[in-house]
Parts: sequence; C-alpha cells; structure tokens
Amino acid sequence: MPHERVTDQITRKVVTGEREMIAQVFLQKGAIVPMHSHESEQITYILSGALRFRIGGDELVVRAGDVLVIPSWLEHEAEALEDTLDVDVFSPIRRDWLDGTDDYFHRKR
Amino acid sequence: MPHERVTDQITRKVVTGEREMIAQVFLQKGAIVPMHSHESEQITYILSGALRFRIGGDELVVRAGDVLVIPSWLEHEAEALEDTLDVDVFSPIRRDWLDGTDDYFHRKR
Repeated sequence: MPHERVTDQITRKVVTGEREMIAQVFLQKGAIVPMHSHESEQITYILSGALRFRIGGDELVVRAGDVLVIPSWLEHEAEALEDTLDVDVFSPIRRDWLDGTDDYFHRKR
Repeated sequence: MPHERVTDQITRKVVTGEREMIAQVFLQKGAIVPMHSHESEQITYILSGALRFRIGGDELVVRAGDVLVIPSWLEHEAEALEDTLDVDVFSPIRRDWLDGTDDYFHRKR
C-alpha cells in the first residue's frame, strides 16, 4: 500500500474493494480534519492515540480500542489530541479519495 | 464492545453500521476458519500475527500490516500460523453474525 500524504500532518494508506474501502490513517498531534460530511457511512477504529470528534452537535473523545460509527451525511470534525493511528472504513467507497478530488470540505447535497 | 467467543480458539468483537460491519478478531495459533463463502465483500487487515489463506485456488500468508480483499462469494479458508489479531470488514453486514446463525459453513447459494 503506498503511503499518501494528505496534509503536513496527515498521511493515509488506502485499500478498496467494490463495496467498501479501508484506510489506515496517521494524524499527528494537533491535526484537524475540518467539519465535513459524505454519503459513505464511516466506521473509525482507533488503534493508538486519541481523537476529539465534533459530530451531530456532540463532542466526544475516542481512544485506542474505541469504535465510532458515523452515519451517512452526518457532519463531523476530528482533532488529534495525540499522535493517532486509526482505521477508517467506508461504504460505499470514497471515490473522491480515489480520484483525488477530496478536499475535506465536501458539503451535504 | 462485548467480547464474543466463537470457538475455543477464536474470539471477536463486532460493531455494525447500516452498510458495513467491523470486527476485531483474535485467532489463537492453530485456529482454523474452514472453507466458506458469503455474499458480503470482506476486507481483512492483519494487526499482528500471521494467517495462511486458501482462496480461489491460491494459498497466501498475510502478516501484520497486510490487507486482503475477498470478493463476494469467493470461497476462503484461514489458518492462524501465530496468535493473530485482525480487523475484518464486511459490506453488506453479516446478518448471520448478528443473529447467531453463522456456523462457518455457509455455502454459496
């Protein structure tokens, strides 16, 4: 899997099937994924570190071993409270990740 | 996530969304998941240890960091060469895992 640099503070490796996609994402402490949403349902599984999510009007911190399910089109933002390694799963697959058109600012249709 | 004992040598924790399901599976060295197939596309990501897969007439060993995509209805078998922790992702979700009807022997329809 090639390592892909997303921002100065975020890298990811992506493997995709037809119906689902998995990514291992590394977020350096302080990295922010700005508020965004997407059709794909997302499941985030924290391998190490900690992320603060703002999601659906709530705020929560997820740490190693925690799993978060983010429904389709629910706006969410993440901030790395520590250097963090997570696994993100999407269905349907994020075509914007594959064709390089994602910019973290995809808005609800 | 509750820890669920599947066999004497296999345990798992499962979290499901609507379109995809994630499981963290622990397989003790020597554990075997007999040849089976399912409609769900599967992505297996090895966190630690090693699994030997027999799949579609091939045999391959996957180790920490490796990712394997198993298409819908492709028969596969896995054997733990070491104590192994992996992440399995399915889409659509494995209803047989949720309602307890899976027995590792689901055959192609």
